[in-house]
Amino acid sequence: MSEQYSSVLLERAVSEFAKLPGIGRKTALRLVLYLLRQPVDESDAFAAAVSELRHQVRYCRVCHNISDTDTCEICANPRRDASTVCVVETVRDVIALENTGIYRGLYHVLGGVISPMDGTGPADLEIDSLVERVRAGGIEEVIFALSSTMEGDTTNFYLYRKLSPFGVRLSVLSRGLSVGDELQYTDEATLGRSLVNRTPFDGTSR
Amino acid sequence: MSEQYSSVLLERAVSEFAKLPGIGRKTALRLVLYLLRQPVDESDAFAAAVSELRHQVRYCRVCHNISDTDTCEICANPRRDASTVCVVETVRDVIALENTGIYRGLYHVLGGVISPMDGTGPADLEIDSLVERVRAGGIEEVIFALSSTMEGDTTNFYLYRKLSPFGVRLSVLSRGLSVGDELQYTDEATLGRSLVNRTPFDGTSR
Repeated sequence: MSEQYSSVLLERAVSEFAKLPGIGRKTALRLVLYLLRQPVDESDAFAAAVSELRHQVRYCRVCHNISDTDTCEICANPRRDASTVCVVETVRDVIALENTGIYRGLYHVLGGVISPMDGTGPADLEIDSLVERVRAGGIEEVIFALSSTMEGDTTNFYLYRKLSPFGVRLSVLSRGLSVGDELQYTDEATLGRSLVNRTPFDGTSR
Repeated sequence: MSEQYSSVLLERAVSEFAKLPGIGRKTALRLVLYLLRQPVDESDAFAAAVSELRHQVRYCRVCHNISDTDTCEICANPRRDASTVCVVETVRDVIALENTGIYRGLYHVLGGVISPMDGTGPADLEIDSLVERVRAGGIEEVIFALSSTMEGDTTNFYLYRKLSPFGVRLSVLSRGLSVGDELQYTDEATLGRSLVNRTPFDGTSR
C-alpha cells in the first residue's frame, strides 16, 4: 500500500530517501520530517554535502581510492610503505583496513571482484592499472585482501596469474576464527582452514 | 573512535547523514557510498528533493498540516466532513489516520503536546488557532487524538477547558486492546481501561 501525503514535495523527498538501501518508507518519512524540523541552514548543509560529494569527488589516479585531489592522501604520504600494495574491492575496505591502524602500505581499489553471475569481468575492474603499477617497479609485495567468497577466490587466482611473472611476493589475508568467536559456532570450512593454517604459539596471544 | 576518510567531501557527507536520527556512522557511510555509485542525476534528484522540500513546503493556514499550497488538500476537499475536526500532535499522525481510510473529517495539527518537562507550554502549540476555528462555527465535533501519555492527557484536559464553552461535542480515541493483542501480554492499565470501556457486542467482530 502506497501512502498518500498531503504534499507532493514531501512525497518526493520520502521517495528519494526510500530508494536508499535498507531505508523503507516509514524510516524515510521519519528522516524527512526530522530534516524539516531542523533550521534551514542545517538541511541546506545536508543537501549541499550530498551534491558536492557527487560532483567534486575524485578517485586517486594511482589506487582509485576516493580522494579530493588527483592523488589520494595515502598514496601521497611519504611515510607510507610504497613497496607494499594491498588489493581491495571497495573504498569501504580501505576504510576498514585503515581502522585497524596496523597497515602502513598503499592500496589498490579494484572496484569489485570477477563475477560472471553479475556480468563483472576482469575488464570491468582496475586490474590493468594494477599490473602497470607492479610492472613499473618498486613494489615488493602485493597483498590480496578480497572477500572470502568464490568470486574473491576467482579474482585472487586471476591476479596471481597476472602478477606472478613480475617476481613480487604475493600474499593473501589469513583465514580462521574471528577474534572472539566460540569454536562450537564456527562453520566447518573456517574451522578446517584455521586448523590447516595453524600458527606457532609462543605463549602470548596476538 | 572517529574514522578517518581519505576525502573531506566524503567525511562531510557521512557526518551529515550521521546526524539523522537512528543513523550511525557505519550506516551513513553505506548510504553515502550508495549515492556515489548512482548516476549523477539520481543523486542530484536526491539533494534537490531535500532542498526544495525545506524551502518550498508550507503549512496549511487552517490545520497546520504539511502542504504545497496555502490550504492543504484535506481542508480544501469539499467531500471531507468539515463539521468534524481531529486534533493531532504531528503531521505523522495525520498520515497514520489517513492510512486507516476511515476518517472523513478535517484535522488540526497542534505541533506537540503540553510538556513542562520539555518546556512546551500551551503558547508553543497551535491551540489558539484551534479555539478560533471552533469559535468561528460550523464545527460540531472535536476528536482528541493525542498520545496516550501523561502529556497527552494533560493536553486533552487543557483543550477540554478551552473548548467546552462552545458547546461542541468533544471526544477522545478509545483505549483498549490493540487488534491482534493477546490478553496475557496486555499491560494492566490498558486491560483495566478496556474493561471499563467495554462495548456492546452484537455477535460480529468490528
